[in-house]
Amino acid sequence: MIITLTTDFGDSEYVGAMKGVIYSICPKANVVDISHWVRKFDIRHAAYVVLSTTPYFPRGTIHCVVVDPGVGTERRGIIVKTKEHIYLGPDNGSFSFLTDIRKIIEIQQGSKSMTFHGRDVFAPIAAKLACGYEIEEFGEEIKDVKKLEIKKALKEGGAVVGEVLCIDAFGNAITNICSEILNLGIGETVKVTVGKKKLDARFLESYGFGDGEELIITVGSSGFLELAVNKGSASAVLGLKGGEKVVVR
Amino acid sequence: MIITLTTDFGDSEYVGAMKGVIYSICPKANVVDISHWVRKFDIRHAAYVVLSTTPYFPRGTIHCVVVDPGVGTERRGIIVKTKEHIYLGPDNGSFSFLTDIRKIIEIQQGSKSMTFHGRDVFAPIAAKLACGYEIEEFGEEIKDVKKLEIKKALKEGGAVVGEVLCIDAFGNAITNICSEILNLGIGETVKVTVGKKKLDARFLESYGFGDGEELIITVGSSGFLELAVNKGSASAVLGLKGGEKVVVR
Amino acid sequence: MIITLTTDFGDSEYVGAMKGVIYSICPKANVVDISHWVRKFDIRHAAYVVLSTTPYFPRGTIHCVVVDPGVGTERRGIIVKTKEHIYLGPDNGSFSFLTDIRKIIEIQQGSKSMTFHGRDVFAPIAAKLACGYEIEEFGEEIKDVKKLEIKKALKEGGAVVGEVLCIDAFGNAITNICSEILNLGIGETVKVTVGKKKLDARFLESYGFGDGEELIITVGSSGFLELAVNKGSASAVLGLKGGEKVVVR
Repeated sequence: MIITLTTDFGDSEYVGAMKGVIYSICPKANVVDISHWVRKFDIRHAAYVVLSTTPYFPRGTIHCVVVDPGVGTERRGIIVKTKEHIYLGPDNGSFSFLTDIRKIIEIQQGSKSMTFHGRDVFAPIAAKLACGYEIEEFGEEIKDVKKLEIKKALKEGGAVVGEVLCIDAFGNAITNICSEILNLGIGETVKVTVGKKKLDARFLESYGFGDGEELIITVGSSGFLELAVNKGSASAVLGLKGGEKVVVR
Repeated sequence: MIITLTTDFGDSEYVGAMKGVIYSICPKANVVDISHWVRKFDIRHAAYVVLSTTPYFPRGTIHCVVVDPGVGTERRGIIVKTKEHIYLGPDNGSFSFLTDIRKIIEIQQGSKSMTFHGRDVFAPIAAKLACGYEIEEFGEEIKDVKKLEIKKALKEGGAVVGEVLCIDAFGNAITNICSEILNLGIGETVKVTVGKKKLDARFLESYGFGDGEELIITVGSSGFLELAVNKGSASAVLGLKGGEKVVVR
Repeated sequence: MIITLTTDFGDSEYVGAMKGVIYSICPKANVVDISHWVRKFDIRHAAYVVLSTTPYFPRGTIHCVVVDPGVGTERRGIIVKTKEHIYLGPDNGSFSFLTDIRKIIEIQQGSKSMTFHGRDVFAPIAAKLACGYEIEEFGEEIKDVKKLEIKKALKEGGAVVGEVLCIDAFGNAITNICSEILNLGIGETVKVTVGKKKLDARFLESYGFGDGEELIITVGSSGFLELAVNKGSASAVLGLKGGEKVVVR
C-alpha cells in the first residue's frame, strides 16, 4: 500500500522521522515522496500540489499532506475519503480542490508533541490506514473541509478574468484559467494584465518555443493557463507570488 | 530490511550512486532517505539528525550516516550496534548522542576511491549487513566513538545555562535544554540571552501561537527547548549558527 | 524492477506525478530517485549524472532521465538499450557518455500534454518496460544518439588540455581529464589554467587534506581530475560554470 508524503519540510530531517514512524507501524507500506518543497506555510501551493499530483497515483493510495503553520492550535486534523483515494492532514485549505468526496473524519487523537503532528498524529494514522484500519476508527464524521477563497475564472466582455493559483518550481505562474475557457490559436498574441503589469504574450504549444526572454502563455500539465519564460522564470520577471489577478484578452 | 541514508550531499547526484551500490549488493533492501540536507560538513547537525529521527525506525534498521569532511584522511570508519539499531559512517562525532551502545567495530576495508567512501565503503557494508553479514566481519572491536564537546545544560542560580545544539530547516534554534529542567507556565515571559543578544520571549505551546515577528520559546519535537518565530526564522533574526551559549531565566 | 529518476525538477512537485503514473501502471516497480537537482536545463550536468551514478545500479535497471528544455518541440524521445541497462528520455545530449549501446529506439507515441513528457511519455514507458514490455514496442530503431561536443583531453607538449565537464553540488569542478593521463605524485604542485585564471594547485589524495582556502586538485569519484577547495567551493572561488578550458602542467 502506497503512502505519499507532501510537506513544506524542505531541506529538513523531519520527514525522516515520519518515515520511521510509518515503517515501524506498517512495515509493508511503500512510502513515496511527492514533494517536501511546498513553499513554507503556503497553503495555496499545497492545494495545487495535491491537485496536480495525487490523482496520478493508484486507487487506494493514502496521501499524507502536512503543510501546517497552525500546528498545535485549534485547527482540525482530518481524513478525507474520496472516490479513489484517502487524504489526511491539517484542515487548513490544503484539500480545497478535492472532488468526489465520500466521507470526512475529524481526527480525535492526542499528540505527544505540540509542534510536530506530522510525526505524532498524521504519520501513525497513515500507517494504520495502510495496514487495514478504517477511517471511522480515528474520529467523528464532519461535513466540510476548509476551502481557500479562490474565485472561478470568468468571462467578462471579451476578456477572461482569473488569478495566479501559484508559482511552480520553474517560476511558471499557474493560473486558475482552464484552457477551454479561452479560444486561442497557436502563435496568437494576447494582452495580459497580471497584478499591476500589462504585457503582450504569445500563446505557444510549450515552453521550448519561446524566444529568449519573451513572456509566453501556454497550457500547463494540469490544464491551466500558465505565464512562462523559456529557460527562465516568469514569476521572477513579473514579481509574482501567487494570488494576483490575471486578465487575458 | 531498511537502510536509511543521512548525508550532506544536498542537491547532489552522489546519493544516487550509493543507492545503486546498495541495490546491486542487496536487491531486497528498502533504502529510505532520512535527509541529504544536513548542513555541509556540519557534524553537530548530523548528530542532531541521528538523534531526532533514527529512533523512530523499526528495530534492526541500518542507518548509514555520511557527513564526511575528513574523507580520505585518517579518521576512522565505524559500525555501532546499539540495543535496537545499527549505525555506520565516519567516526567524527556524528554518533555523539547514541545510547545503549552494545558494540563498536572499526572498519578495516580498503576503498577504491579516496574521495567517496559513502559509495565505496559505507554503502557496500550497509548492503551486506542488510543481507545478513555480521558486523564483526568488517573489522576489530574498539571501545569508544568520537564525541562532540557539548556541555550538559545546567541550573545556575535562578537560570538555566545551555547552548544552541543546531538550527533546523525552519530556522528554529534547538537548544540542549530539556523541557524538564525548566519549570515554565504557558504564556510566561522569560529573559533569554543567546550569544550576545538579550531578549524577552514568551513560552508557548507551539509555533502557531506566536504573534507575527515575536520571538517565542517552545518545546520542540525532540523534547528540547527551541527559540522560534511563527512563520519566520529565529536563527536569521538572531544571527545564530549553532554552538552559541543560551541562558534562560 | 528498479526505475531510477533523474531530472532537473528540483524543489518541484512534478516528480510526484511521474511516480504516481509509474506505480499506477506497474505497482511492483521500485522507483528510486537518483537526483532531481540536475542544474535546470543543463544537459552537460545531466550527462555527467548519468555517467557517474547509473553504472552502479543492478543489471536491467531502467533509467528515466528528464532534463528537457525542448519539451514539446521536435526533439526526439529515445530508449537506449546498453549491455546492462535501459535508458529513456529526450535525445538532447543527456546520453552522450553511454557505452556498450546495443539498440536505440525513437519513441513514437503521442502525449496528452505538450509541456510534461516526463509524466505523459517517459514515465508510462518506463513503467511498461518494468512490467515486461520490449523496447521495440515503442517505436522504430535509429542509429545514433545526440552527443554533446566535448573534446577529449589531450597531451600537448608538457601539458594536458581538457575542459570543465561540470560543477558538482559541493562546487568541485570536474574535468574531463582522466587521472591516468597525468602522472602526478601526491603533494606535487602543478600550474593550472582554467578559463582566464592561472593558479598553482597541489595534487592531493582527497579533499580533506587541503589547507583552508587552498585550491587543490584531486581524483574524484568517477576517476576524473577535479579542482576543489576543502570545505569550500572551487567553482565559486574561480567563477566556473562548466565548459571552461583547463590546462594542467
